[in-house]
Amino acid sequence: MPVITEKKTDAITRLRAIEGQIRGVQKMIDDDRYCIDILVQISAAQEALRGVGKIVMRNYLETCATNSIRSQDERERQATYDELMDVIYKFAR
Amino acid sequence: MPVITEKKTDAITRLRAIEGQIRGVQKMIDDDRYCIDILVQISAAQEALRGVGKIVMRNYLETCATNSIRSQDERERQATYDELMDVIYKFAR
Amino acid sequence: MPVITEKKTDAITRLRAIEGQIRGVQKMIDDDRYCIDILVQISAAQEALRGVGKIVMRNYLETCATNSIRSQDERERQATYDELMDVIYKFAR
Amino acid sequence: MPVITEKKTDAITRLRAIEGQIRGVQKMIDDDRYCIDILVQISAAQEALRGVGKIVMRNYLETCATNSIRSQDERERQATYDELMDVIYKFAR
Repeated sequence: MPVITEKKTDAITRLRAIEGQIRGVQKMIDDDRYCIDILVQISAAQEALRGVGKIVMRNYLETCATNSIRSQDERERQATYDELMDVIYKFAR
Repeated sequence: MPVITEKKTDAITRLRAIEGQIRGVQKMIDDDRYCIDILVQISAAQEALRGVGKIVMRNYLETCATNSIRSQDERERQATYDELMDVIYKFAR
Repeated sequence: MPVITEKKTDAITRLRAIEGQIRGVQKMIDDDRYCIDILVQISAAQEALRGVGKIVMRNYLETCATNSIRSQDERERQATYDELMDVIYKFAR
Repeated sequence: MPVITEKKTDAITRLRAIEGQIRGVQKMIDDDRYCIDILVQISAAQEALRGVGKIVMRNYLETCATNSIRSQDERERQATYDELMDVIYKFAR
């Protein structure tokens, strides 16, 4: 299910910035910077990745999950809730 | 407090691999891949970053934290535990 | 939106068991048990609470969220996704 | 390693309050309260349990971990860091 264009651009721009953050962490380690400062930067990159995950999660909810939830087929809907619960508890951290 | 050479090399190698993972996610989004597959890859990159965080955390424990904990100064030690608790609950996720 | 009876009974039975776990932790602390053993028990109680949260989350998805997602009103649906994202990222841990 | 008296009392008082929170959640479910309100209360109980975990974690750091870290035996210290990393990444959430 394609992510709509505007969101795609947003997600890709963020991912490029994250690449930069990752390179920054490499430099910090190479420069023997203080451990806690490095942990702060790693944590910032994780938080940024989480932000991209949220864009993709929302797209999933608005497209795939919505289509299945709207289905009148009860069995299909139960399978959707199973998948939805699985996705939510695996990726929404 | 410098991270020892072997660990530095390990951490930097992992970070380069993570850069590759991040670029892979960009391509997946660009190619309109299935949302859940993208979430799996983002999650893998997060897990990999967590692994680098663990290397830095352990280095922190073995160097900075250890030096302070060995100090005989009671007040300094209490400040160390405050910092240690802060670091642990902020970054060990 | 009421949780259906079978799920309610399940959730309440689990919550009673969690009360027992909490009392067990109190006893362990009172008995000066080893810290890590206590942490294991606290963690088990947290995991059990998370299980109850999952029951309630699924009920929320199957009832409230489903009704709103099925609505034809676009604005109401966007508000639902906002709420859904908020609920997911706050409680699905 | 015993938790010192003042901290024990604090932890036990908190655990009793958590028992009350758990019973409150049971009542909310029984009364068919709104799912999100129930999730908020479950989340509050989880956060409170996390607080008790922090007391026990700090006690662990101040006693067991400290004794081992102060040891002059290098092998024992490496085992301590292994355990410490394990405890931190398992329980500090």
